[in-house]
Amino acid sequence: MSMPVFDTAAIERAATADLVFEAVRESLIAHAHGRTTVPPPLHLRFPDTDGDCHVKAGWVTGDPDFTVKIATGFYGNPAAGLPTNHGLVCVISAQTGQVRAILDDRGLLTAWRTAAAGALITHAMARPDATTLAVFGTGEQARLQVEWLARLRPIAAILVHGRSWDRARALCEELTARGQHARPASAEEAAGADMVVTTTPASAPVLESAHVRDGAHVTGIGADMPHKNELPPALFGRAALIATDDHDQCLHHGDFGHAVRAGAVTATDDTPVGLLLEKPAERPDDAITVVDLTGVGALDAAVASAVLRELTR
Amino acid sequence: MSMPVFDTAAIERAATADLVFEAVRESLIAHAHGRTTVPPPLHLRFPDTDGDCHVKAGWVTGDPDFTVKIATGFYGNPAAGLPTNHGLVCVISAQTGQVRAILDDRGLLTAWRTAAAGALITHAMARPDATTLAVFGTGEQARLQVEWLARLRPIAAILVHGRSWDRARALCEELTARGQHARPASAEEAAGADMVVTTTPASAPVLESAHVRDGAHVTGIGADMPHKNELPPALFGRAALIATDDHDQCLHHGDFGHAVRAGAVTATDDTPVGLLLEKPAERPDDAITVVDLTGVGALDAAVASAVLRELTR
Repeated sequence: MSMPVFDTAAIERAATADLVFEAVRESLIAHAHGRTTVPPPLHLRFPDTDGDCHVKAGWVTGDPDFTVKIATGFYGNPAAGLPTNHGLVCVISAQTGQVRAILDDRGLLTAWRTAAAGALITHAMARPDATTLAVFGTGEQARLQVEWLARLRPIAAILVHGRSWDRARALCEELTARGQHARPASAEEAAGADMVVTTTPASAPVLESAHVRDGAHVTGIGADMPHKNELPPALFGRAALIATDDHDQCLHHGDFGHAVRAGAVTATDDTPVGLLLEKPAERPDDAITVVDLTGVGALDAAVASAVLRELTR
Repeated sequence: MSMPVFDTAAIERAATADLVFEAVRESLIAHAHGRTTVPPPLHLRFPDTDGDCHVKAGWVTGDPDFTVKIATGFYGNPAAGLPTNHGLVCVISAQTGQVRAILDDRGLLTAWRTAAAGALITHAMARPDATTLAVFGTGEQARLQVEWLARLRPIAAILVHGRSWDRARALCEELTARGQHARPASAEEAAGADMVVTTTPASAPVLESAHVRDGAHVTGIGADMPHKNELPPALFGRAALIATDDHDQCLHHGDFGHAVRAGAVTATDDTPVGLLLEKPAERPDDAITVVDLTGVGALDAAVASAVLRELTR
């Protein structure tokens, strides 16, 4: 039996928004209840070429497949006309260990599951009547967070803050072309939106706690290494509810960890996002809520497994 | 560009003994000099189906490619008529992070690099006039250790010891059919050979130190997890020279670690095998030498990279 390899176009057709939302929601709930296996990732660095490689594995207990995902980032690639990121997902039978397929998705499924997770939890934690959304960052994930949240609730206005005003304007034009009302904004103005999503590789907070309004919800997406930090500890200190997608990971390399080490909150102040997706928490109108998402390997497994089912049915 | 997948038959043709010996030798030497990157492996367990998955990565500094190797073992597979082990090797550019190829080798290259490493170091450490070889274990690696060592030096007689006398006899018949002189032996007799190679999944020593003769060389291949143990601590205590393929790994999950924890030797008593391949150590005729091999990810990278060069030239 030769090993099937599915390319990005096939994967893109199979991975509908409904399929991705469902797989992400179910796997975040499973993860909150400890029904997942997510070993510590493997990591290589290539200092001479400013590159790295992360390998993440995950399994939702009882699912027919698990996945091993390889993702590389080589930051000098754009200068040579190549994409920064490459990668693939191996889908492996949890019954026999046979490799069932390679999804040559070039990072697409990771981008989409990250967008879906951010959108689901932003929607679940924000006030029902929240209508303005700010995104910090102007990259792919900034655009995706808007797109995927717009599938779950109406967004009256979008504020985009980036270090580059030109890039912020370009993203706004792209969003406007898709029917959204979007405009660039200062960090202070953006931090005052009803819903704030940060999608940057920053290593120092991108907004000030004082600029976040009572009643707002803030979703941190960018932190995936110990030195990265988007949200100020003081914001966690003000929050009535803090959620994390993985307690240990968020402590180790998320914004939550920075807040704990700064003494703004204690290490037990977080709630698993899966529990909030299962049963939304009641929130006073003036409460601030914050979620720290660092990415969980079980989501890759759930999404890839669902995509492969679709591709082979 | 679609991703090339090479199957086992193509890999088998490309991976000549010369190519594998050369890649293994060079990468063991590079590893001894710290010119490799070998992150801790990633590991998943599937208790309900008695399965596991190991992911190992490796890079020889400066080489054009690195590898991520996925290997599964599902121990209930044979009952369903399936092989226990599956796996593949992803060869990735260390310049750009692009996946260059998938080697769908089903574990072949791991088996061969393990055989080549064992043969190279047994040949380098054993007395030049050593002629009898004993193997403990009757599986694939037992056969391969004999085959690959026979490519490096003449072997006058082979003793095979296994828990199953029938399997030992079957392996001897196979070796005899290939022109070797092989017969089953007791553990005591086998331990008295000039060269002893252990290839078992044992969790307690398979031979007694007292049965090993002065002047003998012993190579331990089987230990790859903390609970596994093939060689008795007392044997390490008698050894004039102890070598390890990776100091930290051998301490953590090799026979050397058992000997250190038993107090038979200290944690600094080992020499990297790569140094002995570069420049053979002088050994008194009556000295006992021991090597503990646990498997190094850099070897996978070197072998896969060399095979891919051959496949695409």
